[in-house]
Amino acid sequence: MVKEVFRLLPEYRVLHLGDTARNPYGNKSEKTLVRYALEDAEFLLNNGAKMLLIGCNTLSAAATESLRKEFIGIPIFDIITPAVKKVIQETKNKRVGIIGTRTTVVSGIYERLIRQINPEIKVFSQSCPLLVPLVEENWLKKPETKTIVKKYLQPLKMKQVDALVLGCSHYPFLEKIIQLKIGRKITLINPGREAVLELKKFLEGNSTLEKSLVREGEHRFFVSDYTAHFQELGQKWLERPLKVELAEISCKIG
Amino acid sequence: MVKEVFRLLPEYRVLHLGDTARNPYGNKSEKTLVRYALEDAEFLLNNGAKMLLIGCNTLSAAATESLRKEFIGIPIFDIITPAVKKVIQETKNKRVGIIGTRTTVVSGIYERLIRQINPEIKVFSQSCPLLVPLVEENWLKKPETKTIVKKYLQPLKMKQVDALVLGCSHYPFLEKIIQLKIGRKITLINPGREAVLELKKFLEGNSTLEKSLVREGEHRFFVSDYTAHFQELGQKWLERPLKVELAEISCKIG
Repeated sequence: MVKEVFRLLPEYRVLHLGDTARNPYGNKSEKTLVRYALEDAEFLLNNGAKMLLIGCNTLSAAATESLRKEFIGIPIFDIITPAVKKVIQETKNKRVGIIGTRTTVVSGIYERLIRQINPEIKVFSQSCPLLVPLVEENWLKKPETKTIVKKYLQPLKMKQVDALVLGCSHYPFLEKIIQLKIGRKITLINPGREAVLELKKFLEGNSTLEKSLVREGEHRFFVSDYTAHFQELGQKWLERPLKVELAEISCKIG
Repeated sequence: MVKEVFRLLPEYRVLHLGDTARNPYGNKSEKTLVRYALEDAEFLLNNGAKMLLIGCNTLSAAATESLRKEFIGIPIFDIITPAVKKVIQETKNKRVGIIGTRTTVVSGIYERLIRQINPEIKVFSQSCPLLVPLVEENWLKKPETKTIVKKYLQPLKMKQVDALVLGCSHYPFLEKIIQLKIGRKITLINPGREAVLELKKFLEGNSTLEKSLVREGEHRFFVSDYTAHFQELGQKWLERPLKVELAEISCKIG
């Protein structure tokens, strides 16, 4: 999604936190993720962020409400709501598919939000827990990735959905395989892209806030754990050299 | 490895911590893992543990020394040293293979310890990052798992190793597939089993400590994050119902 921010909102300074000391988030409980979201947000606000975009579907599903309650007055954008609007626009046969992490799918948030707007739409969800590790291994074109994607999508294909939400920020890296396996006539929705478009529209309507945003200075990429593997991966994903900064984390158990 | 403890040391009370709020550990840096190990160990000692067994290869590679320095007087067993002794005994052609997580393999700890004892032995290592998520999805017999195991083992097979260390606590669940793909004449070493045998021998020689260990009371299984998925997985792994307790975690970033 950072790529979409660079493309669509190139003039602003980005502060990005990758919580590499505690991710992946996809199998963790909502309770734990709410806590992580509050800690992550506080870190970014302490470093000068003026608005927040939750770039992770799992965190958006678990913690958007808690973040808005905690940080009143800070515009907080989640990555799910714009994708919900888009998929409702796109479906013609009123049958849509959602793929995401286990925690996102168990939360049922996409179904709930889609049905609030249009109760006639049928929503079919499928968790795809192995896709995050496959993307993080950069196995984007391996035959095993293809068969695993096919296996996950088979039940949604059977349900004849005509639109599919890529409900995890890792999945757009597999967009081509997913399109191939679900069928070329199915519309794919990229929540990151929709969220950045929504944010752009918001800024166009809020000139006071828009003017207050920082334009100069380098982007900052924080990680809570530094490894060469994730640095290389980030560079590959963003297609540019990346100077990451370590945001140290300290915890207490029990 | 808990199963091996139950089997070989059934009379003692076990305190187990699964750091589910922050795992998997396999791609994280040594620096972060040292911190996690100190926090995890402190939690167990605060809850009455009299000795520690580090049941994770990655954590053993990263943090055994730091733990022993911090908690002087507490017997601390790692899972790597006993496997090193065993593989040196077992190899005949002096060519051994190690499979493990990225962090374990990058640490080079198996090579270092093996060569300290016998510099003539050639050690070939292969990180297998996708095996942990495959085991945690319980895809133990799926065709995709078989082809991925085969792909990872191919380079070690080419090197004609005659003994292979399953250097991650998840890998023994794939023992049959691994044996099939590496070849049935190759000896597989299970570090968990070796570590528990070593601990048993230690207790037989240290009767004062052995007598002080707690025999009565239920085992306790702590997790730092609770999800139904991991509860089910734990029960499947241990083949018994599991009452887990939440050990809450609180963190600060930056």
